[in-house]
Amino acid sequence: MIKERINALRALMKRENIDIYVVPTSDYHNSEYVGAHFKCREFLSGFTGSNGTLVVTADDAYLWTDGRYFLQAAEELKGSDIGLMKMLEEGVPTIPEFLRDRLASDNVLGFDGRVFSVGEGLEFEEIAKTAGASVRFDVDLCAEVWTGRPALSAEPVFVLETKYSGREASEKLADIRSEMEKNDCTHHIVTSLDDIAWILNMRGADVDCNPVFLSYLLIGKEDAILFANPDIMTAAKSHLESLNIRLLPYNDIYSYINELPLSAKVMIDKNRLNYALYSTLSSHCETFITANPSTLMKSKKNGTERENLREANIIDGVAMVRFLRWLDENIGKTKITEVSAAKKLEQFRSEGRGYKGLSFDTISGYNAHGAIIHYEPTEATDIEVEPHGLLLVDSGAQYLTGTTDITRTIAVGPLTDEMKHHYTMVLRGHLSLAAAVFKDGCSGANLDILARAPFWDEYEDYNHGTGHGIGFFLNVHEGPQSFHWNSGRRSTLTKLEEGMVITDEPGIYIEGKYGVRIENDLLCVKDKKTEYGQFMRFEALTLCPIDLRPVNFEELTAKELKTLKAYHELVVEKLSPHLEAADREWLLNAVKM
Amino acid sequence: MIKERINALRALMKRENIDIYVVPTSDYHNSEYVGAHFKCREFLSGFTGSNGTLVVTADDAYLWTDGRYFLQAAEELKGSDIGLMKMLEEGVPTIPEFLRDRLASDNVLGFDGRVFSVGEGLEFEEIAKTAGASVRFDVDLCAEVWTGRPALSAEPVFVLETKYSGREASEKLADIRSEMEKNDCTHHIVTSLDDIAWILNMRGADVDCNPVFLSYLLIGKEDAILFANPDIMTAAKSHLESLNIRLLPYNDIYSYINELPLSAKVMIDKNRLNYALYSTLSSHCETFITANPSTLMKSKKNGTERENLREANIIDGVAMVRFLRWLDENIGKTKITEVSAAKKLEQFRSEGRGYKGLSFDTISGYNAHGAIIHYEPTEATDIEVEPHGLLLVDSGAQYLTGTTDITRTIAVGPLTDEMKHHYTMVLRGHLSLAAAVFKDGCSGANLDILARAPFWDEYEDYNHGTGHGIGFFLNVHEGPQSFHWNSGRRSTLTKLEEGMVITDEPGIYIEGKYGVRIENDLLCVKDKKTEYGQFMRFEALTLCPIDLRPVNFEELTAKELKTLKAYHELVVEKLSPHLEAADREWLLNAVKM
Repeated sequence: MIKERINALRALMKRENIDIYVVPTSDYHNSEYVGAHFKCREFLSGFTGSNGTLVVTADDAYLWTDGRYFLQAAEELKGSDIGLMKMLEEGVPTIPEFLRDRLASDNVLGFDGRVFSVGEGLEFEEIAKTAGASVRFDVDLCAEVWTGRPALSAEPVFVLETKYSGREASEKLADIRSEMEKNDCTHHIVTSLDDIAWILNMRGADVDCNPVFLSYLLIGKEDAILFANPDIMTAAKSHLESLNIRLLPYNDIYSYINELPLSAKVMIDKNRLNYALYSTLSSHCETFITANPSTLMKSKKNGTERENLREANIIDGVAMVRFLRWLDENIGKTKITEVSAAKKLEQFRSEGRGYKGLSFDTISGYNAHGAIIHYEPTEATDIEVEPHGLLLVDSGAQYLTGTTDITRTIAVGPLTDEMKHHYTMVLRGHLSLAAAVFKDGCSGANLDILARAPFWDEYEDYNHGTGHGIGFFLNVHEGPQSFHWNSGRRSTLTKLEEGMVITDEPGIYIEGKYGVRIENDLLCVKDKKTEYGQFMRFEALTLCPIDLRPVNFEELTAKELKTLKAYHELVVEKLSPHLEAADREWLLNAVKM
Repeated sequence: MIKERINALRALMKRENIDIYVVPTSDYHNSEYVGAHFKCREFLSGFTGSNGTLVVTADDAYLWTDGRYFLQAAEELKGSDIGLMKMLEEGVPTIPEFLRDRLASDNVLGFDGRVFSVGEGLEFEEIAKTAGASVRFDVDLCAEVWTGRPALSAEPVFVLETKYSGREASEKLADIRSEMEKNDCTHHIVTSLDDIAWILNMRGADVDCNPVFLSYLLIGKEDAILFANPDIMTAAKSHLESLNIRLLPYNDIYSYINELPLSAKVMIDKNRLNYALYSTLSSHCETFITANPSTLMKSKKNGTERENLREANIIDGVAMVRFLRWLDENIGKTKITEVSAAKKLEQFRSEGRGYKGLSFDTISGYNAHGAIIHYEPTEATDIEVEPHGLLLVDSGAQYLTGTTDITRTIAVGPLTDEMKHHYTMVLRGHLSLAAAVFKDGCSGANLDILARAPFWDEYEDYNHGTGHGIGFFLNVHEGPQSFHWNSGRRSTLTKLEEGMVITDEPGIYIEGKYGVRIENDLLCVKDKKTEYGQFMRFEALTLCPIDLRPVNFEELTAKELKTLKAYHELVVEKLSPHLEAADREWLLNAVKM
């Protein structure tokens, strides 16, 4: 099937005189997760992971993906003739390197300019130029190959009340306009869906698990235009009017920006804007390149959001405790599979106040499946959870009061010594990072080693960042901050600021055997200020016991042990008032050391 | 006296119509330590630290220096009317910020363009332009104020044999020419004295403790020109001829580069080249801006250099053990002062094979003086070392086989509990960093927190980097690598590579009471390569016991204790064969736990 699709694509490439065609995982907004309409790369390659780019030539095809997906991609690409390119592995070329090597003189490099960032598009241009080749970016060849392609999503939006958002959309617009003024800009185009939803205090449902809505926002000095399907805007009509925001159809942005006055100076974020939009815009307007101011603003949760997040994590913790108790009491007695466990957890969550859905598809991986970093069980892959070994569950939800993301690895029965040792290693890394006290000004690149040291000391590692930012009732992955030692990534050099939420999720993945990951969401808060400066630390938002059965306590340092105890005391204190008696009893027993 | 000098400077400023005049700590080569001829800032301000910039206006004057020197500068500036600007402290403007604030329209900002880097000069230009002011950079006003100014140093050079350097100068020149070719450059100007000495395998003595010689090197595709005082080149004449290097007088570089062909493309390092040279050069030649290739090359010590360094550190360790034993046996019995202790240590060192002098002025600070980070005792400040408290000795030497840099803090008698706790904290930070295992690709910014965590956990810190690179029988401070969490500094993001030498020197400084610092030189080496990638670690080059008397052993983690034991076993193993019986006995006793 995949072979046929690739061949159909090749036929179109031939017709259009395109020698190499690139299909990324993106929509017109550079979203990480995309709606069904945009799943071209998945349709063409069969690879279902959230990150991957397909490059097709007349003779071969390759898929690039990151370390989280190496095992999964290898599995899903079997029999497709598509080669797997493991990103950041030694000897594996990057896509630009590959293109530099492959593009011959007079070749044409084709791609849909709407699904690439400005930086990517410009790099493709430069590579083609150097090779004496050219680019064509006005082609969406997948549209023709994909006969049953779903229409663009059109789910109704709603306005998020200020008691949840903590700040009026009018105030946020004023903050952004003051940044525009600083940079002497007349306009600001926002195309990233999480930024638009945050700025306007609106939420939608156009991307699974991400409460965003398909739109572009053009902010002027006094007014603004929202380009979106008018059918989905009913509930927000008066809200938009009060903000002096006009509504125009979604696709009108491309023609509208052609009509901007020549005197316009437009503030844009090259990393979020799509290349097609940028090309149109920069051909007749002055642009000012910067990060969207809203990206940093929304990463620093305000006081209301922080209070809400604490509540969301109590609600989420209650669901987790109910799930963990259910698992404990039923494992080995009733048949539990990866999928049925995930469904049970979803059921518990759905009973929580303000629940609006999952924040991502639940990862529920038993033993060997736990080693596949972003494994999402399907009916085809589902296996029974037997009463031995480890079940890794990475899950989260959207509440009106915020977004959660938690991983627990659960001993569903007897474990091997290797499992216990690895579990303890992961726990040690997790606790060390969670307990960090650090100077104001530190970034994720400074702190990452706290989580990795226990791994590196034994020449082991995990092929992913230690943590990512999280939105507020928005995307579960939101920058600009992150934890990774690799300072080549801009996000790891982003200063950790008061109010930022970031996950702490080291893991270990033993192919064919098991995976362990422990993840809490941390809130960055101010600690003491002394003669040595302002110190920062983290407050654990996630409230859920960490399974102690696999822990080799003698391997913990005194500090790690203290951090673990203090965390469990917090969990008991915060959750107990909200638990039923039997759940409370289970919890007290679960945290006993 | 200082007031008179500043007033004399102000009179000249008035004559020359200069409103603000800036005097840095530098020579024409952007050296960190400068020869006597170049100590203008010290002459004008009275501040003797190695890092500081003086800014004088018609009405006031300020000295900027970094955290290592806050206490010392405050002391030395007393009665001078010069204000102290503590760099990186909250609320303290940077020099550019200060100039932006102070420079008025039509003002003239004056400085000697030869003692500023390109970046600094360009920034001054931009600041002046923005303010509607102008710059004058062809003035060395200090020359007139300073009547007894020492002449330029002119110490004879010598050629370093390949058994020490490990690589022929001809090979190094070939390596650099291949970098020039990559960048399509016809010429490369090297003005940093450590780079020139390293490239040519030559050493001199034009800067105290730094075996460099005043010169500029212009490398062409086939030949090269060394601009230097011909009188000092006698011993290198045939060496230079064999390398096809012509010798021209030191100051001829400024006129010579005016005669470069218009087709020349000159590779330069903006961070090392002086602004005057750059201005002349860029006015008629194409330039290619990059880091001097030699800077990274020389930071990665070759196999011969590594072997030599191991020997140098044995020689240095023997001297240190003799000194420590002498101190133990004489403290409280004979009068020992900070200066006499430093002299005794210098005497022991001078008896070592290949000894060529100190690598920097010895820091010997007793109790409160130990809190002055770069305190160098003079006759005026010298105090007796009494048989209680802590003596901090930071010292190093130049040997034909390499440069050393070591700090030990010694309990010369009973200590307070606070001293012991702080000493243990410093030791913990030192050991954690020394024992780091890390992925190939990590930088100093990734690892710094290992040393600082014990401090930050108690809301304490030290106002300096955790470590700096060291040259090979060259400058004791040599980049590009360093340890600091602040990723705003380029050096902290430099990847730590095999063969790099870097110090590990956390410290604590309690004003008016005591200072503790423990410093070893570490060699970055490859560790295991596993399925998770290439791992790196450090080999301790410095071989000298760490005083155990102040250690609260119960505060060490098991890992820290293990690292300490293993280090002392290494010290005993490596030094014992080279020690006299009594010294060996002392050592075995000193490392007993």
